[in-house]
Amino acid sequence: MSKFIEAYKQTEYKLAGNGTRNIQVLKETLENWDGEQESDLYGKGKIIEEFQIKLANYLGKESAVFFPSGTMAQQIALRIWCDEKGIKKVAYHPLSHLEIHEEDGLKELHHIEPILLADKDRVIDLEDVMGLKEDIACLLLELPQREIGGQLPDYQTLEAISAHCKEKGIQLHLDGARLFEILPYYEKSAAEICELFDSVYVSFYKGIGGIAGAILVGNISFTEKSKVWKRRHGGDLISLYPYILSSDYYFDQRVDKMNQYYIEAKELAGYYNQCHGISTLPSVPVSNMFHVHIHAPKEEVETVLTEIYLQTGIGFTSYLREGTNGTTNYEVSIGDMYGQIPTEQLRKAFHLLDEKLKENVK
Amino acid sequence: MSKFIEAYKQTEYKLAGNGTRNIQVLKETLENWDGEQESDLYGKGKIIEEFQIKLANYLGKESAVFFPSGTMAQQIALRIWCDEKGIKKVAYHPLSHLEIHEEDGLKELHHIEPILLADKDRVIDLEDVMGLKEDIACLLLELPQREIGGQLPDYQTLEAISAHCKEKGIQLHLDGARLFEILPYYEKSAAEICELFDSVYVSFYKGIGGIAGAILVGNISFTEKSKVWKRRHGGDLISLYPYILSSDYYFDQRVDKMNQYYIEAKELAGYYNQCHGISTLPSVPVSNMFHVHIHAPKEEVETVLTEIYLQTGIGFTSYLREGTNGTTNYEVSIGDMYGQIPTEQLRKAFHLLDEKLKENVK
Repeated sequence: MSKFIEAYKQTEYKLAGNGTRNIQVLKETLENWDGEQESDLYGKGKIIEEFQIKLANYLGKESAVFFPSGTMAQQIALRIWCDEKGIKKVAYHPLSHLEIHEEDGLKELHHIEPILLADKDRVIDLEDVMGLKEDIACLLLELPQREIGGQLPDYQTLEAISAHCKEKGIQLHLDGARLFEILPYYEKSAAEICELFDSVYVSFYKGIGGIAGAILVGNISFTEKSKVWKRRHGGDLISLYPYILSSDYYFDQRVDKMNQYYIEAKELAGYYNQCHGISTLPSVPVSNMFHVHIHAPKEEVETVLTEIYLQTGIGFTSYLREGTNGTTNYEVSIGDMYGQIPTEQLRKAFHLLDEKLKENVK
Repeated sequence: MSKFIEAYKQTEYKLAGNGTRNIQVLKETLENWDGEQESDLYGKGKIIEEFQIKLANYLGKESAVFFPSGTMAQQIALRIWCDEKGIKKVAYHPLSHLEIHEEDGLKELHHIEPILLADKDRVIDLEDVMGLKEDIACLLLELPQREIGGQLPDYQTLEAISAHCKEKGIQLHLDGARLFEILPYYEKSAAEICELFDSVYVSFYKGIGGIAGAILVGNISFTEKSKVWKRRHGGDLISLYPYILSSDYYFDQRVDKMNQYYIEAKELAGYYNQCHGISTLPSVPVSNMFHVHIHAPKEEVETVLTEIYLQTGIGFTSYLREGTNGTTNYEVSIGDMYGQIPTEQLRKAFHLLDEKLKENVK
C-alpha cells in the first residue's frame, strides 16, 4: 500500500462518502431482520415484490424491477425500446457509463449503435437533440452527468427535451444513478422528474450507500419485458436479498438526507475554491458531488495531501487521477462522513492545504 | 397457501435439501466475519481473489472467476469458444439449462446456434458426438443431466468424448452445476474430471447450499476474456461478497459430505421404489439427486402426501409436477436434512405412503 493510501486510511475523518465499504454495511442491515424470513426466489416473494412496489410508487411509475446492476438494467431498457421501434440506434452523452465503463456491452451483446450527443465537456442541450440527423429509438440522459463533475441542464431544458421526444416518438430514458442526489437542486420530487421519462434506472450504492443493486421502472409492458431480458443476462438470481435488503435499509436512512449532502457539497466546494491552484467542477455543485481539479502534478499533490492527512487527521481523497497539462483531479461525493468533521479542524486543514500549495506549486 | 404446502412447512423433518432458503443462511455466514473486512471491488480484493484461487486449485485449472450466476458464466464460456473458433455453433443436450431455463439468452444475446444432441430421455453418448454433421466450436456436457433425474454417462464414455473433442479441435465445456455431487459415484477428484474439459462451471447453491453464485475455470487467457464479458453482461458488481462469503462458508462445510448424500440418496430411492405405483429415475441414483415418478394424478398425490405430512411429521416434497398420462413427479436432492430423520419414523412414513397409494391408486 502506498504511503498516501495508508495515511488516508488512518485519518480520523473523511470528507467524502458514507464510510468504508466493508462487511459491516451488510451485517448492520441483517441485524434488523429475523433469520426465519424467507429468501426471494427468482424475482418472486415478499422481499423483492414489496421493494419493487415501494420504489415504483416513489418514482411515480407503474412498475419496478430490481436488478443486480445498472449496467444490466440500462442495456436492457435500451434494447426493449429499440426492439419496440425497430431501430437499433440510441443517443447519449459521449461520457455516458454505457460508452466508457461497460466494455461495449450495448454494442457487443445488443448490437445497438449509439449516437454521441454534445461535446464531452458539457451536458446535452435541446439543440443537440433537435439537431439529430438519424432516427433513434431512445435518448438516454444522465442526471447529473457524472464524468464532468455532476452537471445538470436546467429544468426547463429537461421539459423541452421531454416534450420534443414525445412529439417525435423517441423514448426518453433516465440514467438516474444519482437521481436522489439531484432532487434538492431541482426542488422537485423524484416522481415529478420521472414523469418526463419513459423509463428510469436508479442505483442504491451511490448516495444511498447500499452494497449494490438497481431498480428499473416504467409501464408494466416494459418491466415485464425487462424481466425476460434479466433472465437472459443471467441476472435473475435465485436470491437477490442481500442487495435488496441493504438497498431498502439505506434508502430509508439516507434518501431524506440528500438536501443536507447538497448544502454540504456547496460548502465543501467553497473551501476548495479558496485554495491556491484549485478549482471545482462545477464551481457551485448542483448535487452532492463535484470534481476537484488541482493545477499541480499528481506526485506533488500526493506528497502535499499525505502530509495534511498525517498532520490534521482529515482525509480529502483516497485516490488521485492524472489530468491534462500536469494537473490532478478527483471526485468528491458527500455522504454521512462530512457532517461529522469539527468545523474548526476542517478549516485548519484547508488553510494548510492552501499554504502548502502556495509553497509547492508555481 | 395451499393445504399441501402449509402441511409441508409444518413438518418436523424434510427428506430433501439443506434447510429453508432463509436469511439465516447469510446471517450465519457473516457471524464468522469481522465487520471491518473490506468488500471486494469490481472483481478485485482479498475476498474474491482468494476464493478464486482456492477453487482454481480445487478444480485443477489455471484460473477461476466468480460470477453471480451460472446462466451468465456459461453463455460467456460458449461465446468465448465460439469467437475463438470463428464458428457460432455449439452442441448440448435438448434439456440443457441453456435450452429450457434461460429465455434463449444464448441465441438472443450471443447469436449462437445450439445443435441438440441425443434424445431427451438419455444422456449424450460418444456416438452422438461422432455423428455430428456440422462444425461446432464447443460441446457442453451437463454432469449429471439434471432434467432426467441426474443421470451420468460412464467414465470411459467421458474420456472417449474428451479425446474425440481434443482430436477434432472442439472445446469441451462442463456444466458442473452439480459437479461436487457426482465425485463419489465416479470415485474421482474434481480436478481429475475437470482435466477432461477445457472450461468448467460450478454452482454454490445446489448441494453446497450457499445463497447464489458460480465459478468459471479454465486457462488464464479464457478467464481474462470472461471478465470482460462479465462486465458486458452487467455481472461485474461493485460487491459480490454476500455470495462469495456464503459460497466459501458452505463449500467448506459440505463439499466433503457429498459421499454421505450419495449413499443416502440411494437409500431413499430404495424406500420410494418399494412403494406401490412409484419408481425413481434413475432407479439407483448416481449423485445426491433423483426424480420420483408416481403413477397417479397430481390431485390424488397431493391429498395422500398432505395426510402423510400431518400424520408423520415428515415432508417428502414441497411441490408436485404433472407428468404425462396422469402421472406426477418431483425432484429430490439430498442435503443435510435427510440425515436428521429418525430411521423408524422414516420407515413408518414410507409404509403409510405405500398403503395409501395401494388404497387410492388403481
